[in-house]
Amino acid sequence: MDAQPVTKTAEQMAGQARVISVSEFFEKNRHLLGYDNKIKALLIIVKEAVDNALDATEEARILPEIYLKVEELEKEKYKIIIRDNGPGIVKQQIPKIFGTLLYGSKFHRLKQSRGQQGLGISCAVLYSQLTTGEPAEILSSTGGGKVHRYKLKIDVKQNEPEIIEESETASKTDWHGVQITFICEGIYREHKQSILEYVKQTAIANPYCSITFDSPSGKMVFKRAVDHLPKEPKEIQPHIEGVEVGILSRMLGDTSARTLASFFTTEFTRIGKTTAADICQKAGLDPKTAPRRVTDQDIVKIVKAVKEVKLTKPPTDVLSPLGDELVEKGLKKELSPEFVTSITRPPAVYRGWPFQVEVGLAFGGGITEPAIMRFANRVPLLYQQGDCAITKSITGVDWRRYGIESDKLPTGPISIFVHICSVWVPFTSESKEAVASYPVILKETKLGLQEAARKLSLYLSGKRRAEYQAERMRIFDRYAGETAKALEELTGEKAEGIVKMIRKIVSHAKPEDFGEEPPEQAKGAKKPAEDKHDEN
Amino acid sequence: MDAQPVTKTAEQMAGQARVISVSEFFEKNRHLLGYDNKIKALLIIVKEAVDNALDATEEARILPEIYLKVEELEKEKYKIIIRDNGPGIVKQQIPKIFGTLLYGSKFHRLKQSRGQQGLGISCAVLYSQLTTGEPAEILSSTGGGKVHRYKLKIDVKQNEPEIIEESETASKTDWHGVQITFICEGIYREHKQSILEYVKQTAIANPYCSITFDSPSGKMVFKRAVDHLPKEPKEIQPHIEGVEVGILSRMLGDTSARTLASFFTTEFTRIGKTTAADICQKAGLDPKTAPRRVTDQDIVKIVKAVKEVKLTKPPTDVLSPLGDELVEKGLKKELSPEFVTSITRPPAVYRGWPFQVEVGLAFGGGITEPAIMRFANRVPLLYQQGDCAITKSITGVDWRRYGIESDKLPTGPISIFVHICSVWVPFTSESKEAVASYPVILKETKLGLQEAARKLSLYLSGKRRAEYQAERMRIFDRYAGETAKALEELTGEKAEGIVKMIRKIVSHAKPEDFGEEPPEQAKGAKKPAEDKHDEN
Repeated sequence: MDAQPVTKTAEQMAGQARVISVSEFFEKNRHLLGYDNKIKALLIIVKEAVDNALDATEEARILPEIYLKVEELEKEKYKIIIRDNGPGIVKQQIPKIFGTLLYGSKFHRLKQSRGQQGLGISCAVLYSQLTTGEPAEILSSTGGGKVHRYKLKIDVKQNEPEIIEESETASKTDWHGVQITFICEGIYREHKQSILEYVKQTAIANPYCSITFDSPSGKMVFKRAVDHLPKEPKEIQPHIEGVEVGILSRMLGDTSARTLASFFTTEFTRIGKTTAADICQKAGLDPKTAPRRVTDQDIVKIVKAVKEVKLTKPPTDVLSPLGDELVEKGLKKELSPEFVTSITRPPAVYRGWPFQVEVGLAFGGGITEPAIMRFANRVPLLYQQGDCAITKSITGVDWRRYGIESDKLPTGPISIFVHICSVWVPFTSESKEAVASYPVILKETKLGLQEAARKLSLYLSGKRRAEYQAERMRIFDRYAGETAKALEELTGEKAEGIVKMIRKIVSHAKPEDFGEEPPEQAKGAKKPAEDKHDEN
Repeated sequence: MDAQPVTKTAEQMAGQARVISVSEFFEKNRHLLGYDNKIKALLIIVKEAVDNALDATEEARILPEIYLKVEELEKEKYKIIIRDNGPGIVKQQIPKIFGTLLYGSKFHRLKQSRGQQGLGISCAVLYSQLTTGEPAEILSSTGGGKVHRYKLKIDVKQNEPEIIEESETASKTDWHGVQITFICEGIYREHKQSILEYVKQTAIANPYCSITFDSPSGKMVFKRAVDHLPKEPKEIQPHIEGVEVGILSRMLGDTSARTLASFFTTEFTRIGKTTAADICQKAGLDPKTAPRRVTDQDIVKIVKAVKEVKLTKPPTDVLSPLGDELVEKGLKKELSPEFVTSITRPPAVYRGWPFQVEVGLAFGGGITEPAIMRFANRVPLLYQQGDCAITKSITGVDWRRYGIESDKLPTGPISIFVHICSVWVPFTSESKEAVASYPVILKETKLGLQEAARKLSLYLSGKRRAEYQAERMRIFDRYAGETAKALEELTGEKAEGIVKMIRKIVSHAKPEDFGEEPPEQAKGAKKPAEDKHDEN
């Protein structure tokens, strides 16, 4: 019954055009959100729900307690439950948040958070219903003993929630938070890019969080390592440096400011009266112009003027990095390394948006092979490693200069932890698996890696020096008796005193004192600062 | 003025949530559509408009005549005009098609076309207004001497067209078609991933199309090489093999079929009464059930039953590959190679959707360095080469077995042309720059490349043999006089006759006849058939 039209007029072709709902779009293109295989699908659902749980608890300043259950119902069919102790979601919002793609609170603001797009959790609902036909079940309590319960699907054509069941019950506990249950197709594995790995890395990057993971292979508890939440990230206004004509035009239409000058000072971060006056003057506009009377030509002039005016950089205290203490605690707790170090770079700015890089290096001990752990706003990134700015930065470092074996990536027993936080992380796709390679992000990450590598190389050269001294001492000890006796005869001093004296000399000596070459790797580590800083 | 809330309740957090329009989403994430640098931005705008022009003319069975102008207005600001001779767009549809993201005629059908998503041309309008504040201008005529003119922007918050100007004029010509003008930020270059390269490759893959390109560096005309359109692709219905629970559920709600059995035979391709009955029986359902009375549990049973039933493959005559003649003509016309060959693979199926691979190889002559030309539904793909299934297939071939120098990719003077056509091409991102690596697509492409490489290797080994013979003849000629004289003395035969005789022997001899090794590359080419066919 396949139709085969011969030729068509514009009128005939017009009849076919219609609106595509966002849900239809992502249903057909679900690989764009990462749902391209059954193993990854389970991981993404868990990740979206846990990320939301962490965002909600932190925003309400509650120490997160997360319960996660993955249960196999039948071959390739799973039930996933995620419960948090957050503030809960008010009743009216529940259907929209879970049943509408592109709905949320995080897209329209500039604030460091795990979610950004308003797509993740509703796409998890979409994938579940697409593969098993089952609705998602949501329980929510904002406290006070009431629990709202919804069973819902997404009406794909309308991109709207379709409520299957709805009820309100009295709770016997004082629980507040959200619990969501999915029934979906999938395959559970415990390999490198698995739910288990995601949970482990989440525990490292969020050490104030406690996670219970009831997995198909048993129950695991990841206890919190610290008892305080990190500093809360601040919401900021856009920086005018990154604002384009189209957005400026919309902001002028929306503002409640009465003059162009006050529009600049109230709608943007870090613009004072002097800078506002300066922009107006360079654009040839009256600072008292009403924002709605600014024409399209004026806006183009403003964007040009902005480039000529000296601007204060965006505030950088709005971000919430983990900090050295948490990075190191997290790495020690999960990896039991022999040595750990970390670096928090000062905040920097891309496209007008602040971001900050943290690097942790853990070496030896419980670590047996090289590993890279990538994080964006505290979320582990497990896929698309090759495309990510973090990986590109790691391969950009000449690790051998720091006494670390490598073949582009380090090859020894070293774990590299990199965390990028920002008010808006630029991901390479909706699946949020890799950070886009903005030059300044690459540069900051590389500098952080180099600083941390320098600290590791000092440790390694000290360790190699200590090994070298110990070896000299062993050689000395082998001949100590005879040497001391000979010297006793020559000098008349007691052999015991001579041994002690020589021990002292040997133990403080450097190889060079004996006219020897220092050990190969310790030598390389002597001048790590020479590594070039590419301005890529 | 950056707000810093201390703690929040569910009620406070609820106030912030709202709908994100598709336009807002892609405005903020424009890199997902490829608008991540100014050079690429110009290319994408041209590509979206030319692709639409080709789709429209072909669908109306008109030989395409496309006019393209790129003009620098000021530093990094360009005017782009694209005009076609298609059927035009009816007046009421114009604003929606250019002013709404996710609107179009190609998303909801299964038919080979360049556009699929209903995103491309409206995102070009979005990018233009975002970077310069300027509306797009659209002229359209469906013939009969009337031209509709619109100047429009996109209302980003509503994802709706905002009409700035609208008029209707009488045309003095009988022109019909669409002309669109963008004013946008960009940088014009003529390097490997440029508009010029896109136009050249479009001319190769669409040799029935004539393109005039009025570029900043002069006017170029790409005349059509053939005067007939390719076979029109057919629209097909979905194949039940690829249909998931969620979609089946929606189709059951929408169908006008009265029974489950007739639902199967009318809504899907290649399902007859026997197969329909078979599915119902295996699912334990009455074939006479009304489609709207089929429950969610029944749907799950149907999906399971489908896997157990023997299904006829989707029809494969619905695709429109270029065919050997056009591939070779296109390559010859643009590259003037010494040798050209092509292979059209039989159609195959992924996720229930038919697709087909064509490969062309052009060697030597005007070609001086290796090049890969990737196409999907006749559209050149210029970015993200590394991520593309086509590139992965090329590196999967052991080119040296075919006497072709290579280091993963061929290194000699060879152009590799690969065209994948399908009723739905799986791209790795909205920017449609790379084909997703479905195993069966990789396999088909590799088989096509190997077949073409075999043909090239036969040519190369013949050529090398000819060169070898010519060299022997030159050596023979150098000593011919003396040798013939000596033989004349020995045998009494005339020197002239002896020379002729020896020439004859030498020219037909193979190296082995002289106990010599054949030339290195010709040897490798002798057994190309040994290359393994990976089942990846």
